[in-house]
Amino acid sequence: MPIPAPVYPAPFNTTRASHVVWSVKDLGRARAFYVDCFGFAVSDEDADTLYLRGIEEACHHSIVLRRAAGGPSAERVGFRVYTEEDLDKARHAFERAGLPAAWAEVPHQGRTLHATDAVGVPLEFCATQPTRPRLVVQFRQHHGACPLRIDHFQILTPEVRKACEFYCALGFRLSEFIAADGTDDLLFVFLQRKGNPHDIVFAGGAGPRLHHAAFAVPDSAHILQACDIAGAHGFGAHLEAGPGRHGPGHALYAYFRDPDGHRFELFNTHYQMMDIENEPVRWDLSMLRQRPWGFPPQRRWYEEASAFAGVPVREPAQKGNPMTLERFLAEQA
Amino acid sequence: MPIPAPVYPAPFNTTRASHVVWSVKDLGRARAFYVDCFGFAVSDEDADTLYLRGIEEACHHSIVLRRAAGGPSAERVGFRVYTEEDLDKARHAFERAGLPAAWAEVPHQGRTLHATDAVGVPLEFCATQPTRPRLVVQFRQHHGACPLRIDHFQILTPEVRKACEFYCALGFRLSEFIAADGTDDLLFVFLQRKGNPHDIVFAGGAGPRLHHAAFAVPDSAHILQACDIAGAHGFGAHLEAGPGRHGPGHALYAYFRDPDGHRFELFNTHYQMMDIENEPVRWDLSMLRQRPWGFPPQRRWYEEASAFAGVPVREPAQKGNPMTLERFLAEQA
Amino acid sequence: MPIPAPVYPAPFNTTRASHVVWSVKDLGRARAFYVDCFGFAVSDEDADTLYLRGIEEACHHSIVLRRAAGGPSAERVGFRVYTEEDLDKARHAFERAGLPAAWAEVPHQGRTLHATDAVGVPLEFCATQPTRPRLVVQFRQHHGACPLRIDHFQILTPEVRKACEFYCALGFRLSEFIAADGTDDLLFVFLQRKGNPHDIVFAGGAGPRLHHAAFAVPDSAHILQACDIAGAHGFGAHLEAGPGRHGPGHALYAYFRDPDGHRFELFNTHYQMMDIENEPVRWDLSMLRQRPWGFPPQRRWYEEASAFAGVPVREPAQKGNPMTLERFLAEQA
Amino acid sequence: MPIPAPVYPAPFNTTRASHVVWSVKDLGRARAFYVDCFGFAVSDEDADTLYLRGIEEACHHSIVLRRAAGGPSAERVGFRVYTEEDLDKARHAFERAGLPAAWAEVPHQGRTLHATDAVGVPLEFCATQPTRPRLVVQFRQHHGACPLRIDHFQILTPEVRKACEFYCALGFRLSEFIAADGTDDLLFVFLQRKGNPHDIVFAGGAGPRLHHAAFAVPDSAHILQACDIAGAHGFGAHLEAGPGRHGPGHALYAYFRDPDGHRFELFNTHYQMMDIENEPVRWDLSMLRQRPWGFPPQRRWYEEASAFAGVPVREPAQKGNPMTLERFLAEQA
Repeated sequence: MPIPAPVYPAPFNTTRASHVVWSVKDLGRARAFYVDCFGFAVSDEDADTLYLRGIEEACHHSIVLRRAAGGPSAERVGFRVYTEEDLDKARHAFERAGLPAAWAEVPHQGRTLHATDAVGVPLEFCATQPTRPRLVVQFRQHHGACPLRIDHFQILTPEVRKACEFYCALGFRLSEFIAADGTDDLLFVFLQRKGNPHDIVFAGGAGPRLHHAAFAVPDSAHILQACDIAGAHGFGAHLEAGPGRHGPGHALYAYFRDPDGHRFELFNTHYQMMDIENEPVRWDLSMLRQRPWGFPPQRRWYEEASAFAGVPVREPAQKGNPMTLERFLAEQA
Repeated sequence: MPIPAPVYPAPFNTTRASHVVWSVKDLGRARAFYVDCFGFAVSDEDADTLYLRGIEEACHHSIVLRRAAGGPSAERVGFRVYTEEDLDKARHAFERAGLPAAWAEVPHQGRTLHATDAVGVPLEFCATQPTRPRLVVQFRQHHGACPLRIDHFQILTPEVRKACEFYCALGFRLSEFIAADGTDDLLFVFLQRKGNPHDIVFAGGAGPRLHHAAFAVPDSAHILQACDIAGAHGFGAHLEAGPGRHGPGHALYAYFRDPDGHRFELFNTHYQMMDIENEPVRWDLSMLRQRPWGFPPQRRWYEEASAFAGVPVREPAQKGNPMTLERFLAEQA
Repeated sequence: MPIPAPVYPAPFNTTRASHVVWSVKDLGRARAFYVDCFGFAVSDEDADTLYLRGIEEACHHSIVLRRAAGGPSAERVGFRVYTEEDLDKARHAFERAGLPAAWAEVPHQGRTLHATDAVGVPLEFCATQPTRPRLVVQFRQHHGACPLRIDHFQILTPEVRKACEFYCALGFRLSEFIAADGTDDLLFVFLQRKGNPHDIVFAGGAGPRLHHAAFAVPDSAHILQACDIAGAHGFGAHLEAGPGRHGPGHALYAYFRDPDGHRFELFNTHYQMMDIENEPVRWDLSMLRQRPWGFPPQRRWYEEASAFAGVPVREPAQKGNPMTLERFLAEQA
Repeated sequence: MPIPAPVYPAPFNTTRASHVVWSVKDLGRARAFYVDCFGFAVSDEDADTLYLRGIEEACHHSIVLRRAAGGPSAERVGFRVYTEEDLDKARHAFERAGLPAAWAEVPHQGRTLHATDAVGVPLEFCATQPTRPRLVVQFRQHHGACPLRIDHFQILTPEVRKACEFYCALGFRLSEFIAADGTDDLLFVFLQRKGNPHDIVFAGGAGPRLHHAAFAVPDSAHILQACDIAGAHGFGAHLEAGPGRHGPGHALYAYFRDPDGHRFELFNTHYQMMDIENEPVRWDLSMLRQRPWGFPPQRRWYEEASAFAGVPVREPAQKGNPMTLERFLAEQA
């Protein structure tokens, strides 16, 4: 089976990963975490919802936190399309594929399409949001980790190839992928529309579940500053992995779990990925044993993720045996 | 006269600013400057030409330096289009506009179109270049300013509005602009295709001349590191302006002149600019008197630029009276 | 005349530059500048006085700002001695030298000696201050420039050699000095007790006047962050010189004027200077024309300084002709 | 038993931690590690010895690596005293204490005293070394981690209190210490002479063994840069702990093992510690369970250290049960 290639021109113009919708138990606690500690800006809030954006974002929100009676879950991941016409084309594309797609009323967004992708991820698309002032040089309002903007999502699924083929058919391009050595068995795919390595990433595992949403920070030192300020706010134990350096994707990273267990990544070092001659970078699974430096993430980083509300989770046929921190220490001893 | 709006869909898909071609007197001296001091990577070189790229670039070159018998000049600024078909469409678009457009053989590039824009700037377009390894995490090869990638060009022209209208017709979008207070008299326009604030910028002045090409650096501290390493290599006096913070465009910057007088900018702090609802940011001319901090550039930064080989330079009808460092000190005294 | 050598053991154990006392017109404005904008911590304040410290300082204050009816002036520069016994020895040393020395009651300090040095600078010495929590890892309280601690003072005086000889007799060591080419005519002396390049610096000029007090910042990027946050607070025009890199002293620097015109420096890149074999570094005056990079400071940086309250200012016999920014631009034109 | 207090004035003037002498199996491999990868400067080398210094050091060496036929070991830790007279006083002080002290011929050092401290650590003292140019602003020679200077040593010993009392009697001051909750049972003592938190640190464990020598780096981001460059040179697996933030001592750190297993720390965020009123900071053992963020070091960081050549290692009466990474993961599961 060949590595999937992007369709060009795309059936509709998806421009970028846009926002994540998480349900949480306690909005006040979530605000203390995302706003007071990490430095996200509040665009709007009401009794049940908190709308956040990064400090360079002019769009209304890249994180939506909704109070939910049930346990915390991921609700949707959002993408932007360029025009209203693209929204209509998107609806047709999903319908042609036999996938759910319906208009929805969503506060602080233009006309919004709710749809489900080929591996069961609940998506939403819109072409506009109300704008808010960019805070990119409003230095008085910078604090915490100075999160700049949303960059990408990572989804766990037992059907990585199926997800890859689906998004390539929507015009997404592979920037990098991990395959079992000597095969085209796709284990991890990094897909993009906006011209850098990722908008959405799929990794093998029980799913569909949202592994994390990722936000860019300005400088390398902000990764450390994020850890320090988390510690100062009593959220030091919420650092789950890192600071470290990815092999695939290249980024410098730190992963945090929020008070409801949702995971987000702070990172930098993305590169530009816009040119047609840039073939996806292949990583053989065995290459991952050579981390640039540092320790592998602990087991929970591999196994835990936010289920999507109302979406059943399926186990993969074969369970992976990733190099967890626990396994690393045991093998080293 | 209204502010020009981008044509969508564009007549052809320009993806980004790609490369600059400068002629120089002494390639060895240019190599000492760009490679040994500032840290650009050499993709190829022969007796007459040096091909350079930034440390995250996989394409073959973003700077081409050509030995020239005559005085130093700018030869062309290059853009990437997405496909070969876009190249054909580009040729037709220029021909329809009555502007020069012809195929050219250019080493280390795919099929290349030479064309001239509405205000006389010699352009070249290609859809592919040979690839080279990205050095983004090849830390042993990082030194100097760690220039990541080309970002944009700035052109001086007596016809800013005409340039703006031309590029908007090609699908470029205005991210910011400076206008005379209370008018739509465009003095400075920031135009983009790739989803951040600039690919090409036009400012009022005798032209067409190439004011500078700009390269992104990873962290704020690299702006200072660039100055320090320039000093250590004996190029300290080549720093012409900065380190400083732009008002329009928001970037942290430093401008250097190369041994032939060509100017390049190192900067960071760009923001993402991809959403249709993001209206261009307007700056009234009078707002520029309020710099965030620091001194205005000296007069030569405003007045000197690289003429394009063989292209006559026309003076603007009205000479500007910018706030130069010299004027600032005189007014302050 | 030889370069003065430090007396060892010193007549009394001065440990470090400790604090500066400035009088100001408007304490609220001074607080907005030093605390809200630049990030100094408030140790105490009353109707007439504001006591500030840097974020790693455990001692009570390194800046004292006193409301004064008259124009703003410098009141004193303060040094720490190690023990109460050193204070007594200090008093005797000043008395032996025929210089004023008297006990004074000073709030938030232990027993305090007021004295005047050989060139007329009003000093104060104490061995203790009340302590306050170090904020060095209290990251929630870090903002602005994150000033760590006071490092040194610079004094203008027509009698640089006399000052140098006086402080060497107190056990201060020269780390670096500037002399007229081929002579021992001392123009600028960097004197230290604490084991890095400076505690007190004397430069030629009308004096005695306090040119600046200097504070260390953690990382290079904090120099830029200080400029940005100053701009965000409307104090951008208070940046008087820099960001730049010193030749003598080596530091990366930025100089700001406070709302009363008092000057302070933010810097980093000091080195350790503790070993007896480290001879002072000599700089010939002519070497200063080779700045590492950047522009010389404007004329006011050379000429303006805070007079000490009640201390007459004497002009030097020969006026210097420093390479000001104004002169640099004129010569370059 | 009270917390030991420093003797003042000291019996002789120790100024600072000066250098470490390690024996290694393969000097070429050690050079690849310390010089090519981490960026230490070579002051001298011969067939059997490599003399290294940090980029701001003017003294000849802060690391001496000696080829040894036997297994790798620590040979000595070195301190500077201020004058030759202090050396003589040092000899007398050791003799009075009934401890070994003898003159030794040591290349690239002035007159040198070999002595053994109260817990068996082989020391050497000198007042001078030949000087080499400081490279603090020789930016062309900065690479790797840009190690600035040696800062301190950490020693494991079963006799922490005895060590503390011995060094306090030599005029060292406690900056911080860890004690068993509610007792004065000293478990970890941070002792200093140079005016910042540490010159020598003693921690409980089988000893005397050298746990690590520590070197300061300029900015926070250099901690990450050190990891990245280590990875690029194939030394990524030599990172043993961190990047992390210490509780006691406050520093941001990373620990590496060299090819012979010797450990060094890169760190920043030290504070100034010079004033007599600064009481040592007490940490109860139980407070260490609250790390600011990140994971505890793995077991080998606690247990492994370099034995001193020819010095027997004694076990502590009671084995500690530190919070290792292994224990942390087991308890969390």
